[in-house]
Amino acid sequence: MELLDRISEPNDIKNLPSDQLDQLAKEIREYLLVVTSRNGGHLASNLGIVEITIALHRFLDFPKDKLVFDVGHQSYVHKILTGRKDAMMSLRQLDGISGFPDPSESDCDSFVAGHASTAVSAALGFAHARELKKTDEKVVAVIGDGSLTGGMAQEALNNASNLNSNMIIVLNDNERSISRNVGGLSNYLGKIRTSKRYLDAKRAVTEGLRKVPAVGEAMISSLRIAKESIKRLVVSGMYFEDLGLTYIGPIDGHDIKQVYEALVNASKIEGPVIIHCLTKKGKGYLPAQQHPALYHGVDPFDIKTGVVNGKKSQKSYTDIFSEKIIQLAGNNDRIVAVTAAMPFGTGLYNFKKQYPDRFFDVGIAEEHAITFAAGLAAAGMKPVVALYSTFLQRGYDQLLHDVCMMQLPVVLAVDRAGLVGNDGKTHQGIFDEGFLSTIPGLTVMSPKNGQELEDMLEFAMNYDKPVVIRYPRGKVSDLLDNYRQPVKLNENEIILQGKDICIMAAGTMVSEAYKACVILKDEGYKPTLVNIRFLHDIDRELILQMSETHSLFVIAEEVVYTGSYAERCRAAFDNIRIEAVTLPDRYIEHGSVDQLRKRYHITAEDIVNKIRKV
Amino acid sequence: MELLDRISEPNDIKNLPSDQLDQLAKEIREYLLVVTSRNGGHLASNLGIVEITIALHRFLDFPKDKLVFDVGHQSYVHKILTGRKDAMMSLRQLDGISGFPDPSESDCDSFVAGHASTAVSAALGFAHARELKKTDEKVVAVIGDGSLTGGMAQEALNNASNLNSNMIIVLNDNERSISRNVGGLSNYLGKIRTSKRYLDAKRAVTEGLRKVPAVGEAMISSLRIAKESIKRLVVSGMYFEDLGLTYIGPIDGHDIKQVYEALVNASKIEGPVIIHCLTKKGKGYLPAQQHPALYHGVDPFDIKTGVVNGKKSQKSYTDIFSEKIIQLAGNNDRIVAVTAAMPFGTGLYNFKKQYPDRFFDVGIAEEHAITFAAGLAAAGMKPVVALYSTFLQRGYDQLLHDVCMMQLPVVLAVDRAGLVGNDGKTHQGIFDEGFLSTIPGLTVMSPKNGQELEDMLEFAMNYDKPVVIRYPRGKVSDLLDNYRQPVKLNENEIILQGKDICIMAAGTMVSEAYKACVILKDEGYKPTLVNIRFLHDIDRELILQMSETHSLFVIAEEVVYTGSYAERCRAAFDNIRIEAVTLPDRYIEHGSVDQLRKRYHITAEDIVNKIRKV
Repeated sequence: MELLDRISEPNDIKNLPSDQLDQLAKEIREYLLVVTSRNGGHLASNLGIVEITIALHRFLDFPKDKLVFDVGHQSYVHKILTGRKDAMMSLRQLDGISGFPDPSESDCDSFVAGHASTAVSAALGFAHARELKKTDEKVVAVIGDGSLTGGMAQEALNNASNLNSNMIIVLNDNERSISRNVGGLSNYLGKIRTSKRYLDAKRAVTEGLRKVPAVGEAMISSLRIAKESIKRLVVSGMYFEDLGLTYIGPIDGHDIKQVYEALVNASKIEGPVIIHCLTKKGKGYLPAQQHPALYHGVDPFDIKTGVVNGKKSQKSYTDIFSEKIIQLAGNNDRIVAVTAAMPFGTGLYNFKKQYPDRFFDVGIAEEHAITFAAGLAAAGMKPVVALYSTFLQRGYDQLLHDVCMMQLPVVLAVDRAGLVGNDGKTHQGIFDEGFLSTIPGLTVMSPKNGQELEDMLEFAMNYDKPVVIRYPRGKVSDLLDNYRQPVKLNENEIILQGKDICIMAAGTMVSEAYKACVILKDEGYKPTLVNIRFLHDIDRELILQMSETHSLFVIAEEVVYTGSYAERCRAAFDNIRIEAVTLPDRYIEHGSVDQLRKRYHITAEDIVNKIRKV
Repeated sequence: MELLDRISEPNDIKNLPSDQLDQLAKEIREYLLVVTSRNGGHLASNLGIVEITIALHRFLDFPKDKLVFDVGHQSYVHKILTGRKDAMMSLRQLDGISGFPDPSESDCDSFVAGHASTAVSAALGFAHARELKKTDEKVVAVIGDGSLTGGMAQEALNNASNLNSNMIIVLNDNERSISRNVGGLSNYLGKIRTSKRYLDAKRAVTEGLRKVPAVGEAMISSLRIAKESIKRLVVSGMYFEDLGLTYIGPIDGHDIKQVYEALVNASKIEGPVIIHCLTKKGKGYLPAQQHPALYHGVDPFDIKTGVVNGKKSQKSYTDIFSEKIIQLAGNNDRIVAVTAAMPFGTGLYNFKKQYPDRFFDVGIAEEHAITFAAGLAAAGMKPVVALYSTFLQRGYDQLLHDVCMMQLPVVLAVDRAGLVGNDGKTHQGIFDEGFLSTIPGLTVMSPKNGQELEDMLEFAMNYDKPVVIRYPRGKVSDLLDNYRQPVKLNENEIILQGKDICIMAAGTMVSEAYKACVILKDEGYKPTLVNIRFLHDIDRELILQMSETHSLFVIAEEVVYTGSYAERCRAAFDNIRIEAVTLPDRYIEHGSVDQLRKRYHITAEDIVNKIRKV
């Protein structure tokens, strides 16, 4: 890594001669493989953006200039080039480097980014602020073609035409979000991408028109608006030009010189400029190039073979959802499935194969996904929308205003609820229970293990009102398979019936609570264990009844305290002692789920300690 | 109203001869004036959509066919034509007809709509469901050009190209949201609108090309993609065509025959079709046509003069905000203001006049508004984003992920917090406190009166972390002007110091609580009254201290119980008796604010009763 070794500070890259940059790109790719094969991480997208990042770092001056990433998991190369090369070995580890940009980590990171479609909005803020301050820093947003389908990116593009000074939007077009992109905009970009032939055609048409002045020049000069239309013959990207942006492209995003020159040219144009770069996700590493979705966010793997470490003997909640929803759909042709650009992550890929007509990938578009499902439900369908908890935050209004107000039978399968681990603070699914609790007429469920997820899905599919089922990332619990009481509306499950101490737990924490009960039993206690299946409404009856024989309740959940079942129960009863074992009200950093549970005191041991203390 | 009298059931309009429809339109306009001058309501938008609605009702069969409104306040004509003509006299009154579509009111209303940009999503759901069910109902969405700037509408358009069957989107283009529209898309539509000349130009170019085969036909036939580009010469609306929609227009939206024919033509085309109708907001009533923003949502008025009833002697919270923010901006040039298409509603219009460079109307785009402000703040500005509480629901993720995670000093001025009255369940600002309480690192404030709003704004502008100030619709309280202690972080205000009973109240409810105290004093009590200025974090210290001399706490707020300060306080203390006077956990219908407060028991009298009961 001869060249990479010469880069230890921001802007060091400017000292390298231009003809060594391709070699630098090669070394960066090698280093990315070393880091991600060890720690896991977002490999494919970073391999795809090496040259663009190098060109940006030749063009920009850090930290003065502002580089705003969208989603941000493609910022590894940027981190390597801004003094964090060695620190990258701690990527996504507890107290190590974050997998996303973070101003608290480096002043070269201008804006946190973990969710999609935010970069143009933030960059527009930086650019307008510069206008007002009359300073001269450059502002560049980097956004993928997938993120561009997100509504807020479109809102930002619509708003961008007001800007009187320069801002550059680098469109990193790899034809994918995590999976292949969908929708009209994607098809449109596809048309632009059929480039060689297209560019040749454009040239021919332009020259053709020039050669025949009677039709060409004359017509152009005599008809102002027609001229505007003729521009469409010679300029691609008119979709963007229609929105008031200047479009440059498409260019080869793996050609550092071409990208650099486009940046320089763009910086001479007033107003927002979009540079359309074509790239390959996974570029330079064959396994990732062939299976970019698999290597999007990858666990540690063997570089030589590309094989991911660890055996995958046990099923994940996502696997269970994936299989069960197909089975249920086989018996009920009203069932349809909706995903927001996550057919793999949510496990709906197999559903798509089985029922292509009943599967809808709407792109990165959580707002639309939920209201679209509401429309399907209003028309008699039984839609299941599979989302991650953290992205459901985007659909709060739609769930409240479009689904629950009409009590439409939409099922939300909310994956990655609770701690997600290494993706860290932008991705933890720890707020959903709180914000969902404020929505009237919703049912929220959480399964303790895989078979309960199956039962809950079955329940939800037969229930004609809005339901959220929230389940965690990762493997299903291997405990408690002997407990499988039928799922009935608003009935929670008593797993152990004891006295004095009643532990109530939801989802993943049922296993922890069970382990706590084992310890407590050894110590002579006879705890009761309740599995909180229904999280939206407090089970007043059960708790009042239990309170006759129990003097202490401990409620354990993997969500922040505010809005938790524990908090709401504490508020609901005046004379019942209820202790909460939840996460604190804060953003939770990256680290393994186990490490984070320990750090924030929501393990079996913490439940036991809480009881011992009382 | 000879013709209107013949319409009492859905589809009755089909019995009228075509040549009487213009007369019907006239009668409907007269009736709209009668209803809204009496009850208030959304006048201008309904005047603008009379002919489109008539054409739709000639074209569609209710309730079989599905008509999905966007925002929905322009559904009055639809209501009149679907058996609710007489009931319209109770429009927006308690237990009367809603000002928005509502399936629970009529089976001719297919979908609730109160928030913008939802119609295409819902309609797409209806259309795909029809494909799966193999039925043949028509599906039409009606959306304004303002709503089109909302991200979720763009997400839906992007997703629409998948549809294999027919769906019609009527674009009601009046160049306005409530105020004049902004942004690239609006400019684009503006270009299309310069129509006559444009259409002539198109024709000339087409014919010109045909006449010179050497350049025209030959080139067209030899270059497939160039042909695609040449299409741009002869088709307007390519922005939509690029997204995979068929575009028809622009047509005169006040020409019933033209709109009807466009609908018939569109229904013959496979896939989504957008019909671009040009209309005039306020059409047919001069005061509304001249001042459409004023007559957007109007209070009862005199039809002859157009003068709104009632004197406007007292200032509204919006007025106070409007004046104070201008004053603060005079002393601090970092202050900038952002609105999402609501310069009038939020009171920022005067700020815009005073500081045009520091004012940003981003269109109907709450998501972008908040992250854009985050970008401005990250670059050193002090942005204030003025939104309505109900629309802030759209920005939950942006506030959590983009503003608060980085602790950026964005101020959210949240108007219409609490009950809004006659707009009803889609617009009540009663959920914000709950969903905001789940966001770490946020400060949420609520003023008891106008001068406190001023002080809080001043505080917020000098505080360098995220702040929400939530204040209600309507006039400022005329009580409590003698109480004006300085606003300090997380310090609440003791208005009356008493003993035994401590009433804590927030915002509007401070006046009610004060009135309750007056009654209680007459009865011999000596209540303490605390103004809860800071709503996000529980004031543990104050409550613990008060609990030494007070045995009962009553906490009064105009929000739903779940997530309220009252609920969170009840959860926070084990041995302190705390009673809540809040709204129940449900959607609250329309009616005057006073009527609703009475119905849901949050008046001074209810506070007194709660205390008497204990």
